[in-house]
Amino acid sequence: MFQSKRINKMECSPIRKLAEFEAIAKKKGVEVIHLNIGQPDVATPVSMLDAVRKFDGTVLKYADSRGLPSTVDTFIKYYSKIGIDFEARDMVVTNGGSEALLFAFIATCDIGDEIIVPAPYYSNYNSFADIANVKFNPVLSTLEEDYKLPSAADLEKAITDKTKAILFSNPCNPTGAVYTHEELMEVLNLAKKHDLYVISDEVYREYVYDGLKPMSIYDLNYETDRIILIDSLSKRYSACGARVGIIASKNRELMDNVLKLGQSRLSIPTLEQVMASSILEVPEEYIVETQKLYERRRNAVIDALSKVEGVKCSNPRGAFYIMVRLPVKDSDHFAKWILSDFDYEGKTVMVAPAAKFYGIEDYGLNEVRLSYCLDEAVLVNAVNILEKALIEYKKIYE
Amino acid sequence: MFQSKRINKMECSPIRKLAEFEAIAKKKGVEVIHLNIGQPDVATPVSMLDAVRKFDGTVLKYADSRGLPSTVDTFIKYYSKIGIDFEARDMVVTNGGSEALLFAFIATCDIGDEIIVPAPYYSNYNSFADIANVKFNPVLSTLEEDYKLPSAADLEKAITDKTKAILFSNPCNPTGAVYTHEELMEVLNLAKKHDLYVISDEVYREYVYDGLKPMSIYDLNYETDRIILIDSLSKRYSACGARVGIIASKNRELMDNVLKLGQSRLSIPTLEQVMASSILEVPEEYIVETQKLYERRRNAVIDALSKVEGVKCSNPRGAFYIMVRLPVKDSDHFAKWILSDFDYEGKTVMVAPAAKFYGIEDYGLNEVRLSYCLDEAVLVNAVNILEKALIEYKKIYE
Ligand SMILES: Cc1ncc(COP(=O)(O)O)c(C=O)c1O
Ligand SMILES: Cc1ncc(COP(=O)(O)O)c(C=O)c1O
Repeated sequence: MFQSKRINKMECSPIRKLAEFEAIAKKKGVEVIHLNIGQPDVATPVSMLDAVRKFDGTVLKYADSRGLPSTVDTFIKYYSKIGIDFEARDMVVTNGGSEALLFAFIATCDIGDEIIVPAPYYSNYNSFADIANVKFNPVLSTLEEDYKLPSAADLEKAITDKTKAILFSNPCNPTGAVYTHEELMEVLNLAKKHDLYVISDEVYREYVYDGLKPMSIYDLNYETDRIILIDSLSKRYSACGARVGIIASKNRELMDNVLKLGQSRLSIPTLEQVMASSILEVPEEYIVETQKLYERRRNAVIDALSKVEGVKCSNPRGAFYIMVRLPVKDSDHFAKWILSDFDYEGKTVMVAPAAKFYGIEDYGLNEVRLSYCLDEAVLVNAVNILEKALIEYKKIYE
Repeated sequence: MFQSKRINKMECSPIRKLAEFEAIAKKKGVEVIHLNIGQPDVATPVSMLDAVRKFDGTVLKYADSRGLPSTVDTFIKYYSKIGIDFEARDMVVTNGGSEALLFAFIATCDIGDEIIVPAPYYSNYNSFADIANVKFNPVLSTLEEDYKLPSAADLEKAITDKTKAILFSNPCNPTGAVYTHEELMEVLNLAKKHDLYVISDEVYREYVYDGLKPMSIYDLNYETDRIILIDSLSKRYSACGARVGIIASKNRELMDNVLKLGQSRLSIPTLEQVMASSILEVPEEYIVETQKLYERRRNAVIDALSKVEGVKCSNPRGAFYIMVRLPVKDSDHFAKWILSDFDYEGKTVMVAPAAKFYGIEDYGLNEVRLSYCLDEAVLVNAVNILEKALIEYKKIYE
């Protein structure tokens, strides 16, 4: 039967495309180390899981569309602790940062409108753009410059009369770049000049390294009316399966509109909001220790990669991803081959080919994104396997 | 700042519009009986809540985009028990029936395409249509005929070359109508003739009265390739806050496409899926007793309403709603007035004005929808308050 054109056009998750090659590895009994996904291995705070276990309601009711009052209140307090002054009307609790992004796109853009995004960017942004019928205008950032935010001049070139917003994640998935106050101020000035929204996706906010302090775009306290904050518990508390996120803005008209979208799906799950209401009880050390853990892992990965011939990587300062340029022509082909045709001592690795993060034709074809939310020893071993694979691959394909 | 035109155009939830009038009542200390919402007061099965309490995972991970394998497996078994033969690839577990509906619209319709829907219909359908940029073509069903499904001839008149699907809920919210095999067969034949999908929203499936047996459109075992089933735990198990639903179809191409939408939002919450995986342990009596309870309540409401002068109601045979024609010109005005300006012995009632369920201009202006998922005595008292209010309202406004 017929399918809608738009759904046919929508791409499968790129990770899913690799799944059949992963299946080949598994069938051969080869163990696959997953460097391809952003699913932390860190334990979720026990207090959060306990909060749900202690739920003593008897009727599991719809929550408020904005969020359970206790959850909204908790988020107000959380932001207040990091110096951001939100009221209940400034936020809607969402099904993860994912839904928050979709809401932001729909509330700011009409069909065919455009959003500027530094590339490479989180590839799922494409799906939300597809659902919202919004077009992306990617502006290149490069490995050579550690993926720093493109200059205002470069961003400006991509602006058309259909552009409604500038979107980025900071710290950035997939690059690990952490943007500076100066870079952000440039973006805000540009947004002001062209009357655009700035959508700041800060789901990795706490995970920055090299002595950097976690920061939010709100810290600049400038043009707050055009700022839309996307946030999530997924990575911060290793609670991806909770699917609790936030969209927040001091633009009241916008948030009243976003609430309509919240009302359409009635509410997000009640139990996960009970969990979210307990985040203030998570001991400070949880974040401190997790931050340190990721920093050690990042160091280990960079260290290991620096010893691999022909490989070049960026210097990520946040999140838990690293972009790596491989001495291959087609990282997609390599990513499949290493699963289906290679193993070292019974193990192989799964990586995310980077082209899909660029959204620009013929870009990133020799890059992959590695995620380092795995044990240090496993990571080092994985890089070792990658090294052996590259040697073998070179023999066959060059 | 600017807002997207589409979000400005989207209507607030009609229930929210009444909220400020409810606030007036509450401020005066008047107790408000809620006949306006479909939030059951019935306890969620203890075994389901316990299943979550027993969750012993340490990392709350993303689930599979299709659903946790154990949840998908449970649904397969659930459907098998009611005679429907689904495999994993035939379904995607969703954020409530709400998300399932949105996915169905996007997968079947391009921008500007149309869906035929018997009116009155569940008013949130409009929001999903707005988000998906789909147009509804409502076809009238009437109180006089107990809102039976419009004839194929009437439905056919609404079909254009943009029509992609016919959508209905069965049992129907807001009418309580339960469609017969014959009516459904007519719809399926019509869908075949015009190559349309049939979206059957069966979230109230088990709650039918007068000795009717729960049925699914799949029971007809005809044209299954064009059938899309929408289902949910919300009403069946009084688990609205779980936000677990299902979209299912034997059309593989369609479901592969729907999975892309599932992948875009990564997964639905893990804990609620753990809960959903336990539904087969809910004792049979739970549904049996709840069905009886609703039937008694329906009888009580109809009985009470039949004694109110000037009021006419339909004869609902399923779900827990009843459409009532009031001796007023503008039920919206009445619904506000009864909150802000009336009370009987310190109590008043909140009803849902029906116009918004029709989606046809100037229709249903003197109707309201009452929900009877409340205690019998409270319901009878509520109808009594309604009666007193109508007398008073008549004095003032006629
Ligand atoms: C940059 C970024 N934003 C948003 C998300 C969405 O996460 P969630 O929906 O789990 O909150 C992710 C997930 O990987 C991400 O990397
Ligand atoms: C007919 C119908 N379909 C779908 C839904 C959506 O319910 P949920 O998203 O809670 O599954 C409702 C809720 O009231 C409904 O009445």
